[in-house]
Amino acid sequence: MTTVPLLTDAEAARIPAVKAVFDDIRAVRKSDFINNFWRALAHDPVALQRTWDQIKAVMIAPGALDPLTREMIYIAVSTANACSYCVHSHTAAARAKGLTDAQHADLLAVIALAGQTNHIVNALQIPVDPEFDRSKSHA
Amino acid sequence: MTTVPLLTDAEAARIPAVKAVFDDIRAVRKSDFINNFWRALAHDPVALQRTWDQIKAVMIAPGALDPLTREMIYIAVSTANACSYCVHSHTAAARAKGLTDAQHADLLAVIALAGQTNHIVNALQIPVDPEFDRSKSHA
Amino acid sequence: MTTVPLLTDAEAARIPAVKAVFDDIRAVRKSDFINNFWRALAHDPVALQRTWDQIKAVMIAPGALDPLTREMIYIAVSTANACSYCVHSHTAAARAKGLTDAQHADLLAVIALAGQTNHIVNALQIPVDPEFDRSKSHA
Amino acid sequence: MTTVPLLTDAEAARIPAVKAVFDDIRAVRKSDFINNFWRALAHDPVALQRTWDQIKAVMIAPGALDPLTREMIYIAVSTANACSYCVHSHTAAARAKGLTDAQHADLLAVIALAGQTNHIVNALQIPVDPEFDRSKSHA
Amino acid sequence: MTTVPLLTDAEAARIPAVKAVFDDIRAVRKSDFINNFWRALAHDPVALQRTWDQIKAVMIAPGALDPLTREMIYIAVSTANACSYCVHSHTAAARAKGLTDAQHADLLAVIALAGQTNHIVNALQIPVDPEFDRSKSHA
Amino acid sequence: MTTVPLLTDAEAARIPAVKAVFDDIRAVRKSDFINNFWRALAHDPVALQRTWDQIKAVMIAPGALDPLTREMIYIAVSTANACSYCVHSHTAAARAKGLTDAQHADLLAVIALAGQTNHIVNALQIPVDPEFDRSKSHA
Repeated sequence: MTTVPLLTDAEAARIPAVKAVFDDIRAVRKSDFINNFWRALAHDPVALQRTWDQIKAVMIAPGALDPLTREMIYIAVSTANACSYCVHSHTAAARAKGLTDAQHADLLAVIALAGQTNHIVNALQIPVDPEFDRSKSHA
Repeated sequence: MTTVPLLTDAEAARIPAVKAVFDDIRAVRKSDFINNFWRALAHDPVALQRTWDQIKAVMIAPGALDPLTREMIYIAVSTANACSYCVHSHTAAARAKGLTDAQHADLLAVIALAGQTNHIVNALQIPVDPEFDRSKSHA
Repeated sequence: MTTVPLLTDAEAARIPAVKAVFDDIRAVRKSDFINNFWRALAHDPVALQRTWDQIKAVMIAPGALDPLTREMIYIAVSTANACSYCVHSHTAAARAKGLTDAQHADLLAVIALAGQTNHIVNALQIPVDPEFDRSKSHA
Repeated sequence: MTTVPLLTDAEAARIPAVKAVFDDIRAVRKSDFINNFWRALAHDPVALQRTWDQIKAVMIAPGALDPLTREMIYIAVSTANACSYCVHSHTAAARAKGLTDAQHADLLAVIALAGQTNHIVNALQIPVDPEFDRSKSHA
Repeated sequence: MTTVPLLTDAEAARIPAVKAVFDDIRAVRKSDFINNFWRALAHDPVALQRTWDQIKAVMIAPGALDPLTREMIYIAVSTANACSYCVHSHTAAARAKGLTDAQHADLLAVIALAGQTNHIVNALQIPVDPEFDRSKSHA
Repeated sequence: MTTVPLLTDAEAARIPAVKAVFDDIRAVRKSDFINNFWRALAHDPVALQRTWDQIKAVMIAPGALDPLTREMIYIAVSTANACSYCVHSHTAAARAKGLTDAQHADLLAVIALAGQTNHIVNALQIPVDPEFDRSKSHA
């Protein structure tokens, strides 16, 4: 169930701005599979283009973090935000990028521990130690 | 401001179960600094011991993920949970483990992108593609 | 799946306090449709009455904001809280009050942008500029 | 720093609808102290009255749960929502209603455990067992 | 749909570390039913053991709070975190421990009120009254 | 306290990519004031440019929603996410765009009501009525 329509390939083919993004997703990912996220976003071709551009810049382009590490960070945020679809789709993406069962287990352990201590800290309302401040660290 | 007292070293020294954990934190971290999280948790020596044991097992012991990756995942969860103290303390921990400015910038970009798409997905209520299911994947 | 029973019309008819609210919902909305939210809340007639009274006061009675704007704000909160049912029911309500596809796309863009910057700010832990304070603004 | 003014007693005295609620808060609580929550809400006398009425009905009036249990549930929700003010004010309220150090420690342990398992479950995306369904349990 | 396999009893029987925990769960709970949470966690026997040990220590062992109160706190946290599975499983657990319909209604009323005031406070950004501070309360 | 440095104007002037964005912010907003959000983001000129471009496209450019409505939606998301800085800065922005006290009071009432019902729904785990589905609504 969605709050917007999910575009089929036939529908996407009739909107050039959508077809162009779908084609690029398939080319970049070397796969014919277009997951529901893009079919839902396609109801707004401008948002579709903007979001795909950002995914390419942040998740795919070379950077200081490797692609698998980025996927694990993505899963961590999505878990804390209770975004079911995001957890499913990015766990699949992480596996496609080489996530092993042992790494997945470690990832879950860190997420679970952070969830626990986040709640402890919020319940105790602990003041931040001044040692952690970086606001004046540029010289 | 806290909802429990923050134990000073003098107070901790009078409670053997607390002193033992503080001593172990200092030995494991090779540093005399005990941050406020532990001083607050010390009001309950059992919880203090249980939490420190878990931190050692999940964040410090060798595993499938390296220590810096674990800290970045921790920061990601804490950011999504709006846990100010946790973001500050684990960003400091990540820096101590070698996080560079470029890696920090990448980490922030992934967290921000996940925050954005999590909200898009929650607003669109997109059904999970069956391709992402792993519940029957064991053979 | 629910944690309380969903009352059918036949069951509601046997509890005067529930029947009275269901009748009022139908009269105010000029529709026979009672959505599951009310059928679930009906397990506690006092909560049912209190919640419906508040909905009427805050969402339906004339005020400084028009009904469609209120629905969009409601969707925004429900999205950030990952409340699937709420996003679905209030997106339907917004459409019934005239939300166009273009307005929906704009709504989603603002929600997504706010989700992104909320995460950036939480990760950077930026102090509030004193220019934004209003605690002393009454004269 | 606030986004609305905090009303002083002198200012409250000039608005009859606000003064009436402040007087009732003092009478019900048998204390002259009006905490900042009410001074902030006072910028909207209708919301002030509605919220105070609800607090009295849900937190103070006799019911199936005792007042201390209700405060602990309130703290639990506020912790998960990262509402700093709410955690502080309701921990103080719980203490005023008899919360002991040992009960506070137990409360924190349950909150922390729930925070941990909530994250595990969200990361694993576990389907709800049909045994937990109550939607058809009324006979 | 899950991100890890759900172990059947036959599969669990082949992994001694998993079988041992499943046996203990059945013995402690005096029931043959193993809910999906444990079947999912079983993909990582170390996490399975650690989590079950924590559940026993925090939720089952005698303490300052009675078992039903702990379950209600658990439900409160899980509701605020939008953890669907957790709300279902712990509402069932609370009922098994004696939660009445009237207590459930009261629990929901407190959770809903806290959800409401948490949002008011976060929107008003109210500063914590110094009267609520306990950081210096030990003498 | 921040996890990255806050750039002063003098420091920003030495980095052309940062100076260009700061100049554009001042020109677009017709104000010399650069709030801390931009001074913090400036540690990563690429993220600074990308975020400012998005703010201009989503919050400032003409669209289907007027600028004040967009700011109210932004406040709603930021409140639910407990992002203190975001609530402060966008409440100030909304006031600059004409938000009246009466509109602010209405905004807060809707946010609070949504917070309340979000929690009720999450606690009751109500299934979405099929009437709300739009996944097949395109013809």
